[in-house]
Amino acid sequence: MTSLEDFIVTPWEVEGVVDYRKLIERFGTQPLTDDLLKKTQELTKSELPIFLRRKFFFSHRDYDLVLKDYEEGRGFFLYTGRGPSGPMHIGHIIPFYMTKWLQEKFDVNLYIQITDDEKFFFKPELTLEDTRKWALDNILDIVAVGFNPDKTFIFQDSEFTKIYEMALPIAKKVTFSTARAVFGFNEQSKIGMIFFPAIQAAPTFFERRRCLIPAAIDQDPYWRIQRDYAESLGYYKTAAIHSKFFPPLTGISGKMSASKPETAIYLTDSPEDVKRKIWKFAFTGGRATAKEQREKGGEPEKCVVFKWLEIFFEPDDKKLEERYWACKRGEILCGECKAYLTEKVIKFLDEHKRKRKDAEKVVDKVKYTGGLASKMWESTYQGPRR
Amino acid sequence: MTSLEDFIVTPWEVEGVVDYRKLIERFGTQPLTDDLLKKTQELTKSELPIFLRRKFFFSHRDYDLVLKDYEEGRGFFLYTGRGPSGPMHIGHIIPFYMTKWLQEKFDVNLYIQITDDEKFFFKPELTLEDTRKWALDNILDIVAVGFNPDKTFIFQDSEFTKIYEMALPIAKKVTFSTARAVFGFNEQSKIGMIFFPAIQAAPTFFERRRCLIPAAIDQDPYWRIQRDYAESLGYYKTAAIHSKFFPPLTGISGKMSASKPETAIYLTDSPEDVKRKIWKFAFTGGRATAKEQREKGGEPEKCVVFKWLEIFFEPDDKKLEERYWACKRGEILCGECKAYLTEKVIKFLDEHKRKRKDAEKVVDKVKYTGGLASKMWESTYQGPRR
Repeated sequence: MTSLEDFIVTPWEVEGVVDYRKLIERFGTQPLTDDLLKKTQELTKSELPIFLRRKFFFSHRDYDLVLKDYEEGRGFFLYTGRGPSGPMHIGHIIPFYMTKWLQEKFDVNLYIQITDDEKFFFKPELTLEDTRKWALDNILDIVAVGFNPDKTFIFQDSEFTKIYEMALPIAKKVTFSTARAVFGFNEQSKIGMIFFPAIQAAPTFFERRRCLIPAAIDQDPYWRIQRDYAESLGYYKTAAIHSKFFPPLTGISGKMSASKPETAIYLTDSPEDVKRKIWKFAFTGGRATAKEQREKGGEPEKCVVFKWLEIFFEPDDKKLEERYWACKRGEILCGECKAYLTEKVIKFLDEHKRKRKDAEKVVDKVKYTGGLASKMWESTYQGPRR
Repeated sequence: MTSLEDFIVTPWEVEGVVDYRKLIERFGTQPLTDDLLKKTQELTKSELPIFLRRKFFFSHRDYDLVLKDYEEGRGFFLYTGRGPSGPMHIGHIIPFYMTKWLQEKFDVNLYIQITDDEKFFFKPELTLEDTRKWALDNILDIVAVGFNPDKTFIFQDSEFTKIYEMALPIAKKVTFSTARAVFGFNEQSKIGMIFFPAIQAAPTFFERRRCLIPAAIDQDPYWRIQRDYAESLGYYKTAAIHSKFFPPLTGISGKMSASKPETAIYLTDSPEDVKRKIWKFAFTGGRATAKEQREKGGEPEKCVVFKWLEIFFEPDDKKLEERYWACKRGEILCGECKAYLTEKVIKFLDEHKRKRKDAEKVVDKVKYTGGLASKMWESTYQGPRR
């Protein structure tokens, strides 16, 4: 980060405290306005989920057109993904809850791409066996979120290789020079990496309807390639709604990263791990001493514990607001908030582990035999059936 | 071609009269020696085919090791291919006869890759539907050559997409810079093109035995990438035997090209087409006048008609030699040789068309249901079977 930049957001790097209003300008996306939220509420006949209410999702491209397509009966579909290079943490799973809400309320198809090829290409130390193993592991976590098994297709690129066929048309459009600009390639980049943007764009062409991608805003540049060429291929430019970053335990700048274990809470962490990590690493907006805090009040804006409650763990709006003011007025100390969050996270993980166990029975459906999955597998020749 | 170069051979350009001995040095391949041919004869307990007898195949990489592997029971397999961008001509089909001989005599598996993806990427004017149409058309011509339907697998990349999975390991090794050096890419090359070398190399990893590729020598650079990385991936460096170029009707420099119709005889040409093309375009070693030819004799070394007889159309060694000397001594004129070749070519095409008709019944076997084909399709998950 140079001294001229206050923050950096690229698909491979998030640094500094992000000013999300500035980011919308830089990226040329649209703010998710109150009008659009109201429209969402009307069309779904539902209360907004906290992700929208509290503007964790804050920006979009063509989400207005998605709602219009829905309203006028043309429909749309959802697409998201996961790069399986290790165990999933809380920052990974939360966007899937937003996706689940969208699927449920709009009753639409959802495609989840597990990029075991991408992680194999981009992580020198991982074998294909490794990324496939993580794929199966991560899929259990994703299925545990609870998607409609007949309208969800989860696929691994190295297995659902029809993705290669679907990638051909866009792979004929995108030049090395364009891919380099978006992905930061150089002369030494491997040809697998260079091709990957085509594989990533392919699911946006799975249906001749508008595709909506819920994802963190740093992923937006990837979809610009798709948007540049989609119409010339006879498809819609993909739409997206963008979330902010789920902050690492250690501070509200950057994003939670699996490569720095102290910044993240894993879905497999034990209650003791959770307790220890939040206690030891969670960055708060507290003052140097309890006395000072009682006098001046805390700074919830800078507090990771508060952010986690705001984004996901305190669904009750009233309670969240009370906590905010109690902190500001110095009525509560950081230890109390940490304990509260710890309890919420442990409960969430507990429930997640139970649902993950049940997910084992559903995996086959979303991967192979469910309504959407079997349709996807059957749509091309798959060898002799005897 | 600069004035310093007497000929050029790259995968995308053949110009000038090729000095094949020099080419062996330039490319760093090995000459196909009499010892190797003798060994081939011994192991196959067969007479050598004219392609070997007359050194149309003249160079190799590791063919000696292939024979050793065969002799010692480790075996090997064959791999060749075809880029389906239009109708096949005689220059395209002849190498398949060499491949057929090898399969028959060594009784080995043969994989034939139909690169409908490559031709789609590299030919701006062709759609995927076009290259797939040509794939089906060309496969009929190839099957007509008569391969063992239970030991041959013919596949289109856009359909047998498992090829993508097989390409992943090498796609993680090859850099843009390497691919550019071999394929002549630049900044504006499409990412599909850049990835294609990985797809082309993938079939050499279909079996953990040595792979033997029969191909024209201009294709050799493609396999250098495979040879650079194969051993680090736990496979053999691929072996190859290299042919000279089948000369265009219009002269012995360059190679027959589908984009210059007058230089080629297509497998679909009628007897009238053949007659007209050979009469009108065939470049001979004849003199300016019949009188001069009778006095000085012709120059069979420069004569395309003689070359075609030598490479394929005159299987009788004695007759070929007699013709050579009769020409040298001015005893025959070009018209006579042209008429002789015309008759041979018409007969060949006639038979080819008949075998092509029968091939329709075999296509399903070599693509899907035959011994080798069904094994290839069944080796990964292919969706729910109901």
